[in-house]
Amino acid sequence: MTTTLTLYTPAGVLAQAQPLKRAAKRLGKLGFEVAVDEGALAKHQRFAGDDEARLAAIHRVAKAAPDIALATRGGYGLTRLLDRLDWKLIAHSIEHGTRWVGHSDLTSLQLGLLAQAKGAVTWAGPMAAADFGRSEEEGGVDDVTQDCFTEAMSGALEAVGFRTEAGFDGLGAKGMLWGGNLCVVNSLLGTKHLPKVKGGILFLEDVNEHPYRVERNLLQLAQAGILDAQKAVVLGEFSAWKKSPLDRGYGLKQAIEAVRAVTKTPILTGLPFGHVRTMVTMPVGAKVELLVSGRDAFIGWDLGHHHGHHDHDHHHGH
Amino acid sequence: MTTTLTLYTPAGVLAQAQPLKRAAKRLGKLGFEVAVDEGALAKHQRFAGDDEARLAAIHRVAKAAPDIALATRGGYGLTRLLDRLDWKLIAHSIEHGTRWVGHSDLTSLQLGLLAQAKGAVTWAGPMAAADFGRSEEEGGVDDVTQDCFTEAMSGALEAVGFRTEAGFDGLGAKGMLWGGNLCVVNSLLGTKHLPKVKGGILFLEDVNEHPYRVERNLLQLAQAGILDAQKAVVLGEFSAWKKSPLDRGYGLKQAIEAVRAVTKTPILTGLPFGHVRTMVTMPVGAKVELLVSGRDAFIGWDLGHHHGHHDHDHHHGH
Repeated sequence: MTTTLTLYTPAGVLAQAQPLKRAAKRLGKLGFEVAVDEGALAKHQRFAGDDEARLAAIHRVAKAAPDIALATRGGYGLTRLLDRLDWKLIAHSIEHGTRWVGHSDLTSLQLGLLAQAKGAVTWAGPMAAADFGRSEEEGGVDDVTQDCFTEAMSGALEAVGFRTEAGFDGLGAKGMLWGGNLCVVNSLLGTKHLPKVKGGILFLEDVNEHPYRVERNLLQLAQAGILDAQKAVVLGEFSAWKKSPLDRGYGLKQAIEAVRAVTKTPILTGLPFGHVRTMVTMPVGAKVELLVSGRDAFIGWDLGHHHGHHDHDHHHGH
Repeated sequence: MTTTLTLYTPAGVLAQAQPLKRAAKRLGKLGFEVAVDEGALAKHQRFAGDDEARLAAIHRVAKAAPDIALATRGGYGLTRLLDRLDWKLIAHSIEHGTRWVGHSDLTSLQLGLLAQAKGAVTWAGPMAAADFGRSEEEGGVDDVTQDCFTEAMSGALEAVGFRTEAGFDGLGAKGMLWGGNLCVVNSLLGTKHLPKVKGGILFLEDVNEHPYRVERNLLQLAQAGILDAQKAVVLGEFSAWKKSPLDRGYGLKQAIEAVRAVTKTPILTGLPFGHVRTMVTMPVGAKVELLVSGRDAFIGWDLGHHHGHHDHDHHHGH
């Protein structure tokens, strides 16, 4: 049985065709039946086509309902479409088995969907251009990223594991997994596109954001009552930020400490997720269980037997 | 009658004493009786003292209730204090005549105050280090900035004028003036520190933010229903952002167009305010009148006769 996979570009422009071609080829070799949406290389200013074109592309993919809808990249662009997306159409594709995968700007699609169509599970995971489209000179595809993605897509993957900081041994929590890019999560605050999740496991990552900005965003989530309402917060990678001469010993560690001081909710670090080579694939909107033993953390889920072969106790360590 | 002016540092660290000294000297020459808060040069990581120290400094200034409380700089740091500030104490100082002046990170103090203590007017205007502390080699103090500040502080100033784009001739609107730094305004969304202003005149500026981020923030305000609830939005300067090769013709103009497409509220540009040399001083939380004649825009107010000499029809053009 073949697994169909459609590559589409919902937000920022894909400036070059090469990473898309490489990704399509590699995903084909992995056994997926790859289709490239007709608008994947569209260009309008910094967007992959104007708003109408990108809206049409997302709806086209939803109607086609492939097994996997994999975004080629994020960037910026979904914010413009949130009030106009046909959430029912997208939710319908998910009922028919489509797994929507991505991160970064895609966070707004994933969380908007959770807010508008309860129970619609999507996947936080790699994207085609940056993760499957990297040339061999740029290091090619990361093994963990690739294996985790393929196993999550087949339904075989039921947990991801990672090393976290000391201090959380014995922690156990069940709740809805949600989150994504911190800036994008915060960009939904005050709008109808942020799902109201109580007792959840909130995961967050960001790129190019100085720790003071990460702190400001996290404190906003705290002041909005969102951190206190979660069972746990799991931080991924906060990558590619630049130190300032004004920091004087302030960094990501100090930012996280400041946030921990205002919430009782445990804030774990170490999730391999974000704008980095090595990342896990996880179900957004699914009920998961977070377990910590020593410094080993696991996020596990059980989505039932929708997608063929299904090995119990299968998980992917990092 | 002397006008007392206290310089204090509520957020980011003042790395060097020189700009503070220059500002104190210049403000003294302008006729203000200048005091420097004991914590103005405190240092803790990237902050002007730890949270307790900065909180104490703000409360110390509020208790002393000078005629003018002028922040030395913004940076980042007030977000941490919002849930712990004694808003009544600050509001009390305002009743006693204190004019709190600043912008950037100070936006959260000004808007938090409006949210917690209705009718408490503060002043969007220059700050000591960047605006009054610039060395002669760096260009010294801008005349318009200085004159507008001194006249606003004396109570003489009752309007600011600026050139806006064509297309708004004849526009007239009355409402509460509020706003400030766009990122900081958005950082209050979803929290109790954002005032619920209907029928207001919302002014916004930012620095180092790419237009797509300005757009994302403005669209969030639109999606939160805030833009539609205002009579007008007045954009200040969005300075010091860097173009990206991915922009392909997208810039601030295109960002503003995208926001105009989703709200009927007029969005004017051209307000001389932001992280720039030439900036007006305006009352945040006061009822103002916005008038446009041709491309000449005016924001006028009448705060009564609290502060001595008072010339009617006095305004400052740019």
